[in-house]
Amino acid sequence: MTITPGAPEPIVTAADPIPAPTDRIPTPKATPPDVVRCAYMELVVTDLAASREFYVDVLDLVVTEEDENTVYLRSFEEFIHHNLVLRKGPVAAVAAFSYRVRTPEDLGRAVEFYTELGCRVERRSEGFTKGIGDSVRVEDPLGFPYEFFYEVEHVERLAWRYDLYTPGALVRLDHFNQVTPDVPRAVKYMEDLGFRVTEDIQDEHGTTYAAWMRRKPTVHDTAMTGGDGPRMHHVAFATHEKHNIIAICDKLGALRRSDCIERGPGRHGVSNAFYLYLRDPDGHRVEIYTQDYYTGDPDNPVVTWDVHDNQRRDWWGNPVVPSWYTEASTVLDLDGNPQPLTTRTDDSEMEVTIGADGFSYTRKEDEPRGFKLGAQV
Amino acid sequence: MTITPGAPEPIVTAADPIPAPTDRIPTPKATPPDVVRCAYMELVVTDLAASREFYVDVLDLVVTEEDENTVYLRSFEEFIHHNLVLRKGPVAAVAAFSYRVRTPEDLGRAVEFYTELGCRVERRSEGFTKGIGDSVRVEDPLGFPYEFFYEVEHVERLAWRYDLYTPGALVRLDHFNQVTPDVPRAVKYMEDLGFRVTEDIQDEHGTTYAAWMRRKPTVHDTAMTGGDGPRMHHVAFATHEKHNIIAICDKLGALRRSDCIERGPGRHGVSNAFYLYLRDPDGHRVEIYTQDYYTGDPDNPVVTWDVHDNQRRDWWGNPVVPSWYTEASTVLDLDGNPQPLTTRTDDSEMEVTIGADGFSYTRKEDEPRGFKLGAQV
Amino acid sequence: MTITPGAPEPIVTAADPIPAPTDRIPTPKATPPDVVRCAYMELVVTDLAASREFYVDVLDLVVTEEDENTVYLRSFEEFIHHNLVLRKGPVAAVAAFSYRVRTPEDLGRAVEFYTELGCRVERRSEGFTKGIGDSVRVEDPLGFPYEFFYEVEHVERLAWRYDLYTPGALVRLDHFNQVTPDVPRAVKYMEDLGFRVTEDIQDEHGTTYAAWMRRKPTVHDTAMTGGDGPRMHHVAFATHEKHNIIAICDKLGALRRSDCIERGPGRHGVSNAFYLYLRDPDGHRVEIYTQDYYTGDPDNPVVTWDVHDNQRRDWWGNPVVPSWYTEASTVLDLDGNPQPLTTRTDDSEMEVTIGADGFSYTRKEDEPRGFKLGAQV
Amino acid sequence: MTITPGAPEPIVTAADPIPAPTDRIPTPKATPPDVVRCAYMELVVTDLAASREFYVDVLDLVVTEEDENTVYLRSFEEFIHHNLVLRKGPVAAVAAFSYRVRTPEDLGRAVEFYTELGCRVERRSEGFTKGIGDSVRVEDPLGFPYEFFYEVEHVERLAWRYDLYTPGALVRLDHFNQVTPDVPRAVKYMEDLGFRVTEDIQDEHGTTYAAWMRRKPTVHDTAMTGGDGPRMHHVAFATHEKHNIIAICDKLGALRRSDCIERGPGRHGVSNAFYLYLRDPDGHRVEIYTQDYYTGDPDNPVVTWDVHDNQRRDWWGNPVVPSWYTEASTVLDLDGNPQPLTTRTDDSEMEVTIGADGFSYTRKEDEPRGFKLGAQV
Repeated sequence: MTITPGAPEPIVTAADPIPAPTDRIPTPKATPPDVVRCAYMELVVTDLAASREFYVDVLDLVVTEEDENTVYLRSFEEFIHHNLVLRKGPVAAVAAFSYRVRTPEDLGRAVEFYTELGCRVERRSEGFTKGIGDSVRVEDPLGFPYEFFYEVEHVERLAWRYDLYTPGALVRLDHFNQVTPDVPRAVKYMEDLGFRVTEDIQDEHGTTYAAWMRRKPTVHDTAMTGGDGPRMHHVAFATHEKHNIIAICDKLGALRRSDCIERGPGRHGVSNAFYLYLRDPDGHRVEIYTQDYYTGDPDNPVVTWDVHDNQRRDWWGNPVVPSWYTEASTVLDLDGNPQPLTTRTDDSEMEVTIGADGFSYTRKEDEPRGFKLGAQV
Repeated sequence: MTITPGAPEPIVTAADPIPAPTDRIPTPKATPPDVVRCAYMELVVTDLAASREFYVDVLDLVVTEEDENTVYLRSFEEFIHHNLVLRKGPVAAVAAFSYRVRTPEDLGRAVEFYTELGCRVERRSEGFTKGIGDSVRVEDPLGFPYEFFYEVEHVERLAWRYDLYTPGALVRLDHFNQVTPDVPRAVKYMEDLGFRVTEDIQDEHGTTYAAWMRRKPTVHDTAMTGGDGPRMHHVAFATHEKHNIIAICDKLGALRRSDCIERGPGRHGVSNAFYLYLRDPDGHRVEIYTQDYYTGDPDNPVVTWDVHDNQRRDWWGNPVVPSWYTEASTVLDLDGNPQPLTTRTDDSEMEVTIGADGFSYTRKEDEPRGFKLGAQV
Repeated sequence: MTITPGAPEPIVTAADPIPAPTDRIPTPKATPPDVVRCAYMELVVTDLAASREFYVDVLDLVVTEEDENTVYLRSFEEFIHHNLVLRKGPVAAVAAFSYRVRTPEDLGRAVEFYTELGCRVERRSEGFTKGIGDSVRVEDPLGFPYEFFYEVEHVERLAWRYDLYTPGALVRLDHFNQVTPDVPRAVKYMEDLGFRVTEDIQDEHGTTYAAWMRRKPTVHDTAMTGGDGPRMHHVAFATHEKHNIIAICDKLGALRRSDCIERGPGRHGVSNAFYLYLRDPDGHRVEIYTQDYYTGDPDNPVVTWDVHDNQRRDWWGNPVVPSWYTEASTVLDLDGNPQPLTTRTDDSEMEVTIGADGFSYTRKEDEPRGFKLGAQV
Repeated sequence: MTITPGAPEPIVTAADPIPAPTDRIPTPKATPPDVVRCAYMELVVTDLAASREFYVDVLDLVVTEEDENTVYLRSFEEFIHHNLVLRKGPVAAVAAFSYRVRTPEDLGRAVEFYTELGCRVERRSEGFTKGIGDSVRVEDPLGFPYEFFYEVEHVERLAWRYDLYTPGALVRLDHFNQVTPDVPRAVKYMEDLGFRVTEDIQDEHGTTYAAWMRRKPTVHDTAMTGGDGPRMHHVAFATHEKHNIIAICDKLGALRRSDCIERGPGRHGVSNAFYLYLRDPDGHRVEIYTQDYYTGDPDNPVVTWDVHDNQRRDWWGNPVVPSWYTEASTVLDLDGNPQPLTTRTDDSEMEVTIGADGFSYTRKEDEPRGFKLGAQV
C-alpha cells in the first residue's frame, strides 16, 4: 500500500497550537481536581412531558428514576445513576455540566481551585440531584455552571441487555460542547483544569474558532466553540455503529418529527466521528456521535483545521446550517438565573465561511464545483 | 405491537393513480417486447481518463474490457458484459438506455412496437457495443435513445470475490431516471411497453411531478421526472448495505473530491431506499442506492406522495439542492446528435416546494420548526 | 483491478446441470400455474402461547390478526395478510407451503396440472386461512402440501414505519426449504411447475445433494434438500442488513435462549447470503437470511458446488451441526395427517463430508489446517 | 421500558473478587511505571514472506517500514511507529509484549520495580526495535518478556485516509492475552503493576479460570488465561464495526483460507465485544474485536462469570473449539530462548465445561436444548 498524502490535510502538531489569549485567566496554585470524564448534564425544560417523550420514547434513553418534576436518564452502557437530568423549570436552560472525579478528595481540590479563581463555589454533601452524593458546583471563570462529584449510586449496566436495545440505542454520554467568546482564553483555563487539546479550528491569522479537549481518551469531554457566551452548544451521546444513527433519523421521519433534525447525518472532519444534530422540544441541541479515535497517549498529536477548509466540519463538504452556528442554550448561575452573554469579538466562523465574503475550498489550489446547497441558495 | 398510523402518510392505491395525459401517445397494437430489466447505460464522456478514474478508481466498478476510446464496466454481482459504457466523445451525453429482454424474439417485437409508434428504429445483429449481440435501438416517442438486447457475453459474477470488494462496492445496476416534460404522457407510454407504476408524486390538483416504474420487482427500472426533456437525470447502482454508501462519501472526502457529492446521503421517502447522488467529471449524475422493497406482486400497492410533503424526497426532511432539480444530461439521437429539449409546462417541483411561494409541511396540520437549511438561507 | 480466479471455485454452467432422475414424474400436458413467489407457510404448533412468544416477542414478526387457535404474522415490508400462520394442533407439523400466483385464472391451471399428475386436489373459494380467498391445496407428487392463491387481503406495508422497527426486524419472507429423498426427481417436477435451478450441490459421481430453485428473482423460493421425506427443512425470513441478524443472536443471549440457535450466523457458499438458523419451540427450523443476488435473467448462470468443498454450506468453513442434516418437520396431508417418510437411498451429505470417511477440503490440492471444531471433536 | 433481569446473569461486584493466591508474588516497595496502554507485540515468525502476506495482504495492516528480516506494522488509527513487529527467526514465538508508559521517567520506575522483584532487566537507550527509543525489557515474574517505552517515532495517523481503508480495516491494537498456570497469582502481580480487573471467570469453588485487566479504559490491555504457561494466547486488533469482521471472514473464504478461522465470529459474554479468532501461518492466534465498553471510572463494576455458563465465552452459546483452549505461542526470554512451561494445577476450563463431566447450562434451572455442535458430536 502506497500512502500518498491527500491535500490539503489539517496540520498535525505535537503541542497545543492555540495562540496565547490576551486576557488570560491566572493559573491557580491549587492542584486541580482529577477529572475522569464528563458524566451528566442537567437540563431545565419547560414542558417535562414533551421532553420525556423526546428523550425516552424517541431517543430511547433509559429512565433510572423519575418524579413529577424530574426525569433521570442514562445510556445503555452506563453504570452510574444518570447521564442526563430533565428538570421542569420556567426557562429552558442548562443547570449543570457535571464531571466525575477520581476520588472523594478531588472535591476539596475543586473547592480550592475555583475559590482561588475567585468563583462562586457551593458544596453539598447530599448532592444537587438524586443518585449523586457529595458534590461541588461552581460558576466557572467563563460563566458556566460546572459540577464535580465522586459519590454516585450504581445501577445496572445494560450493555448485555439486547432484549431492550432499540435500533438507535444510545450507549454512552460522549461529550459536552460550550459556546464562549474567547476560545484561547477558555482553552488555557481548561488546560489548567487538566484538560488536553486534541483538535482545533484556526485561520491563517491565528484566530481560533473552536477547540476540542479531553480527559478520557476520546477526542473530547468538552469543546469550546467561539460565539456569544456562556451558552451550551450541545450534549452528545454515542451509539455503537453508524446504522444506529441512521435508524434515529428514520424513526424521526416515521414519527413525522424530521424537523427536529438540524444537521446531518454526516462525517465530521474534526474528530472523524459520524454525527447527527437534533433539537429537543426546547431547542436544546443533542448530538448523536460514533467512532472517533483513541487519544490517550501523552503526546497524542493535535490536529488543526483551516477554518476555510470545507471538510473541517463535514468531511463530505455538506454545508453547516446557520442555526447551528447562531443558536445555543442559556446557562444558569447557581441561583438558577440565566447568565448574561458576552459578545464574541473575534471573527465568526459562519461569516468567514459562508457567502460571498467567506473564502472556503475543497482543494486548496482548485475551484470547487457548484453542487453544494450552500453554493446554490 | 400496536400499529398506529403516522400522519400524514402517502396515499396507497391499488391501481396507477396518475391522471390521463391530454396528449396521449397511442397504444400500439403490436405486442411489446418482454423487458427483463434495465441492463446498462452508454455514457459519452469528454475526458475518458478522468471518467475512468472516477468510475474505476473512485467508485471501484469492475473493468470488463477497455480500449483507447471506450471502457466497459460492471458491478460486482453482474454476469453480463457490462452495466456502464464510457465512450469518448465531443459532448457529454447519454447514447443509450439499454434494457435486456427475455428472448431473442423480443427484438422483433421491439422493432414492430416502435415502428408502429412512428419512431426511428435501428437493428444491428452485431450489437452497438462490445459484449452485446443482436440489438435494437430506437428514438422513443419521448426522444430517448432506448436499446433492447438479449444476446450478451457472460463474464465472471464476482459476488463471492470478497478479496476484491472495497468498502463502497457497487453490486448491481439498479435503475435509470429520465427527465421528460409531461409525466403522465410518459407513464402511459411506458405502461404500454409493459412497465408498472410503483410510486409517484402529485399535488392536490392532480399535477404529476414524477413517477417510478418497474419491470424487475424493485421500485423501478426507470423513473420519469418532470422537467425540460428529454434528458437523463441519473443512473443508479446498488450497494449491499448503508455503510457502503457512507464509505463512498468518506473516500471522496479523503480524496478531496467531496464537491462531487451533490445530495445526500439520506433516506428517500419514495422507494424507502438509502441514497447518495454524485456528479461525475462531465456532470452526469450517479445515484448510489440500497434497500428498496419487493414490488413483484401483480397488485403491488402504488404509493402516491404529496409534492408538499417535506419527507417525500428525503425522509429526514433534508432539502433538495436546486441543481438536482434543474441539471440533467443531454441525450443523443441515433446519429449521435443532441436531442432538442421540450419545455415542461406543468408546475415545477422545485418552484412549488422551495421558497416563499412553496407550501410544504412536515406534519400536515402543524408548523415545522425552522432548523432546516432550506428554511434558513 | 486484476481479477484472478480463486481455486477451487464452484462450476458455473448455463443450464441446469442436474442429472436426469431414474424415476421421473411425468410432465403434465396442462399449463402450470404462473407462480409469483413463495407467500406463506402454515405451521402447526403444539403450544400456541410459546410459539407466539417466539415469533412475536423474540423475532418481532407483526401480528396481522389472531384468535385463540391461530396467529397470522407478517414481515415489515409485506402488504398481503400474512407470511406465517401459527395454528394450534396436536402434532408439530407443516400444513401448507403456500405460493402466490399471478392471476385468478392460475388456480384453474393448478387444479388441472395436479389433477393430471394424479394428486389429491382441493379448492376452496373462501380459502383455507383468514385473509386469503379462493385457494387450491394439493398433496404434490413428492408428498408436500402445496397451496396456490391469488386473492388476498391487503394490509399496511410497514416499510416506512421505523418507529416500529426492532434491531432484528424481519422484512420479507424469503424462501422455503424441503427435504425429499430424490433431489433430481424433485427438481424435474419443480421445473415442470415453472421453477428454475439457480445453484446445486453434487459430487464427482453426479449424486445431487441439494438444489435451489426460484420463481421471483432471488436465489430461491424453495430448495430441495436430500434426505428422508417429505419433510420441511426450514422457512426463511430476510433482514435488511447483517447486523440485524447479529442483533437477533444478541437478543437470544440476553433472553437466555441462545440454545435455540442451531447453526450460524455465517456466510453461505450457496446463495452468498448471510444466515442464521434457529429452532422454534416445536423444533421447526427458521432461517434468517440476507443479501443473496439477483437471478432474474433468463440465462442466469447456475452454480454447482462440490459436496466435498468445505465452503459450500459455510463460506468460512465452519462445520454444519449434525441436527441440521438429520432433523426436519413433519408435513401433513390434506386431512391433517402426517405424511409417511420415504428413505433417501442416495448418499447422505452428512456422511460424505463429516468424519473419517468424508473427504472434504478447503483448497482442493492442499491439506487443511486443523482448527475447525469438526476436525477437533 | 421495564427492565427485568435476565437469569442467570454474571455477578457484578465493586472490587476485584478474585481469591488470594496461595503463592503470592511480593508487592515491590518501588512505584510501578505508569502504563498507558498495550502498544505493540513483537512476533517471531518462521516464514517472513508468508507472515507478511497474512498480515499485510490479507489483514491489511499498514507497513510503516520493513527490511529483509523485519516488518513493522500499524493499524489505521495509530500514530506511533508500530503495533506489531514480525521478525524472522528459527522458532515461532513472542519476543515482547510492549506497553507504552506515560513519561520517560517511568522507565526508571520499571527498572526498579522489576529489579526489586528479582527479575532479569535490560534497558537499551536506542530501543529494541526500530521506531522506538529508550526501552526496558524484563523477564517478568510469570516468565513473560514485557517491554516498557515512552520514546517513539510518530507516523501518519491514517484515520481520515478512507481512500486506503479496506472492508476489514483494523484501526487499533486492542489487547494481549497471556496463558499462565495460576491466574490469581498473575492478577495480584498485575494489580501491583497498576492494572485493574474488569471481568473474570470463576467456578462455585472460587477457582479462577481467567481474568481481564486494563490500564486504558477498555475491558483490557491484557488478560490472564489459565493454562500451562508462560505462553501467548492471542493479540487483538479492533475494527470500527461488526461488518468489518464479517468482511475479513468473507475475504478469507474468497482466498480459500477459511481454515485459518479458528473460532467465531461471535459475541463474547465477557467484554460484550464482537469477535473472531484467526491463526497466522505460524499458528500465532490473532483476535479481531469490536465494541466492548468504557471502564475508566475508578469504581467500574467487576463482572464475574460462572465457568459453567454457556454464554460466558460466546453469548450465543456456540462452543469453544478445543484448540482455542490448548494451543498457544511460545514466549522467549531476553536471550531469545523459549521459556519452559509450568503446568496448570487448577482445573482446566475446557475439562470442566465440555463433555460428559462438564456441567454447563444456558439457563441455570433448565435443560438446554440439544442443537449445539458441542452437544451433538
